[in-house]
Amino acid sequence: MPVRIHDAPLAPVAAELRATDRDVVRYVDDCCDRIDEAQPELHALVPEPSRRERLREAAAALRDETPADARPRLYGVPVGVKDIIHVDRLPTRAGSALPPELFAGPEATCVTRLREAGALVAGKTVTTEFAGGGPGLTRNPHALDHTPGGSSSGSAAGVAAGLFPLAIGTQTGGSVVRPAAYCGVVGMKPSLGRIPRDGILERSSSLDHVGMFTQDVAGMRLAAAVLCDDWAAGEEPVGEFPVVAVPGGTFLQRAGPAARTAFAAQRRRLAAAGCEVRRVAVPALEEVTGLARDHRRLHYGELALVHEPWFDDYRSFYRTPNAEAIAAGRDVTVGQLAASRARITQLRETFDDLLATHDADLWVTPAAPGPAPATIRTTGDPVMNRPWTYAGVPVVTVPAGQTPEGLPLGLQLAGPYMRDERLLKWAEVVADAL
Amino acid sequence: MPVRIHDAPLAPVAAELRATDRDVVRYVDDCCDRIDEAQPELHALVPEPSRRERLREAAAALRDETPADARPRLYGVPVGVKDIIHVDRLPTRAGSALPPELFAGPEATCVTRLREAGALVAGKTVTTEFAGGGPGLTRNPHALDHTPGGSSSGSAAGVAAGLFPLAIGTQTGGSVVRPAAYCGVVGMKPSLGRIPRDGILERSSSLDHVGMFTQDVAGMRLAAAVLCDDWAAGEEPVGEFPVVAVPGGTFLQRAGPAARTAFAAQRRRLAAAGCEVRRVAVPALEEVTGLARDHRRLHYGELALVHEPWFDDYRSFYRTPNAEAIAAGRDVTVGQLAASRARITQLRETFDDLLATHDADLWVTPAAPGPAPATIRTTGDPVMNRPWTYAGVPVVTVPAGQTPEGLPLGLQLAGPYMRDERLLKWAEVVADAL
Repeated sequence: MPVRIHDAPLAPVAAELRATDRDVVRYVDDCCDRIDEAQPELHALVPEPSRRERLREAAAALRDETPADARPRLYGVPVGVKDIIHVDRLPTRAGSALPPELFAGPEATCVTRLREAGALVAGKTVTTEFAGGGPGLTRNPHALDHTPGGSSSGSAAGVAAGLFPLAIGTQTGGSVVRPAAYCGVVGMKPSLGRIPRDGILERSSSLDHVGMFTQDVAGMRLAAAVLCDDWAAGEEPVGEFPVVAVPGGTFLQRAGPAARTAFAAQRRRLAAAGCEVRRVAVPALEEVTGLARDHRRLHYGELALVHEPWFDDYRSFYRTPNAEAIAAGRDVTVGQLAASRARITQLRETFDDLLATHDADLWVTPAAPGPAPATIRTTGDPVMNRPWTYAGVPVVTVPAGQTPEGLPLGLQLAGPYMRDERLLKWAEVVADAL
Repeated sequence: MPVRIHDAPLAPVAAELRATDRDVVRYVDDCCDRIDEAQPELHALVPEPSRRERLREAAAALRDETPADARPRLYGVPVGVKDIIHVDRLPTRAGSALPPELFAGPEATCVTRLREAGALVAGKTVTTEFAGGGPGLTRNPHALDHTPGGSSSGSAAGVAAGLFPLAIGTQTGGSVVRPAAYCGVVGMKPSLGRIPRDGILERSSSLDHVGMFTQDVAGMRLAAAVLCDDWAAGEEPVGEFPVVAVPGGTFLQRAGPAARTAFAAQRRRLAAAGCEVRRVAVPALEEVTGLARDHRRLHYGELALVHEPWFDDYRSFYRTPNAEAIAAGRDVTVGQLAASRARITQLRETFDDLLATHDADLWVTPAAPGPAPATIRTTGDPVMNRPWTYAGVPVVTVPAGQTPEGLPLGLQLAGPYMRDERLLKWAEVVADAL
């Protein structure tokens, strides 16, 4: 049985709250109703006893302090915040059994940016343990016996169910794009470092990205403009339709039959709408094993560095996937770390140069090897996301149909490094074409 | 033959420039005269063809823009800046043969703080290659065939010769305290992180400290107040004379006979002046070999991470000490890095707890194993400095007599972590007593 799914597209909701006399206190009350109804089955949010009181008070204060003609862009919008991101007065638990005092720190700049834009924190969203490894209890709103994906599980599921119009999460492998695709929403991971990462419990400093979830591409643009450094609102694509690059070779074979069939249909639809679709061979993507190994070394090595103050004292508090990753990470040498870090720039240049050489605007691939697996014991496989995360280039996933069983599928779009604005513009075109 | 040594104590110079009609353009001109005279033998500064024009212009602009009643604390004071610290419009070469474009970046916050306090950059001071390893050509102003110490060689030598009243440098092992002692000036390394480290070419991110050189303790207090985060000007010692802890055991035996004889005389003088001197056994200091090994692993491991983007491409540009350190650093494992990082806090707590337990205010030791070695092929041995650097606690060295040959000696004072203000107050008392 699915849970009730509400429409909560960010752009029109924000426009309405900002421009009309819709009351923000009443709106957060509605959100709390939805949350209370969904929570027992969906588990998108970390439990918080006085959520409604806190949100009502914050909304009332915002209303009383903000003149009607000076409402900021996200005035009164409730936002889900992944529980590895520090929010003042809400503890960061990171899906972990460790004492939360260990992680405490000042509020993240990304949260402050949201607040300054008028957003209200709906609550902390469930994450897998330390944003990787052991899953939480969150379920997929489209099919409760399926995973919502991870590690930003609650952010994806909460936006998909319409509990709040916007959520933020993080991606070190595929932790934004994959759950967004599994849950049928728009996900974006801007270029590495484009959103400040202070105030966020690190997993792997070279690979961690902040990302966002919305139901609508227009809302994602609004969120990106608020969250990203130096967002250039005016940058337009040069043409009406993008030239779209599809990786040649064996990479796409990592996707299963359902995703490949859907992807073929999506390509046809893009071509029919006016996009030019080109196959571009990417030798770097053929080194699937080497890429995964280098990514894992960097990921686990840096994870071990992060957990150095806690792991020996609190080993019995760690779930097995992270305990094993940290133990493996300790054996990584500095030379291996260095080599794995060097691949970031190499990969980025490879992807960006290939796009330039082939006069293409973006890459398209399935966002995941298939729909959400029918279990909550795993959050699925980031294999389709890993190379683009590793390269630090901007990635957007847009909903792209569903399986005969009604499970959402996503289309992953990746653009050149730091050209996030243009990628999002093309994402609108692609979403319309689909 | 020594070079000419000028008096340039920061506190009175700054007070005069600030409060009288002494002309800042004329003052920087005087400094340039001193620099030009000393430079061919001393090599304290990185050559800069139009130094005088640049400094005269900057001083004139400062004078024209600053009302006489609004002069900031370091109004018109020329400052030497170690050439691993970014200064706008002066390249960072880091004592290296690598293309300086590789290191370029925004100006360091510490330089900006100096500028905002009215200081003028006298120039980049000579550093050993990448602030460790291969020495520069700088010589000791008290004896030109002796090293000034390193890695902040030019900062120490330039302040000692009175070319400028203030210089900044960095310390990863003993790179501020040791050269200050060898050159007979006051050196300070505030607590780890107390001065922001952005805009500085890293050597070892867990160990790098920003530090300063002056001829006078009062000037050091002025510099610390400008450079340190949240300097509390009002914090006074609780008594008139400090209780001084001398490490027991074998640590002091790392110093040679000249330093030990001088240190015994210094202790007697401190006691005669009214300080209480206590021997405190420090078991951690007996693990000299283990400490050095752990420090080296962290130092070389993090150095290898810093040089990861350059080392393979530019290996032939590296001098042998750093090439060997980077190669060794690549074999360090994440587990070893983590263990070596964990010792920072352990050591800090050990030192601070021992002071508290023995009701002592600070540690005193010789600042170096002896006077400056009679060579410029080495910058001397940081063995007396390493434990206090490793612990990240604040350290001040004050001039403490000289050898029969006229070579300066220094006394190293180390206080509790983040109690930099109080340590400097005690340093004044100790300097007076000596």
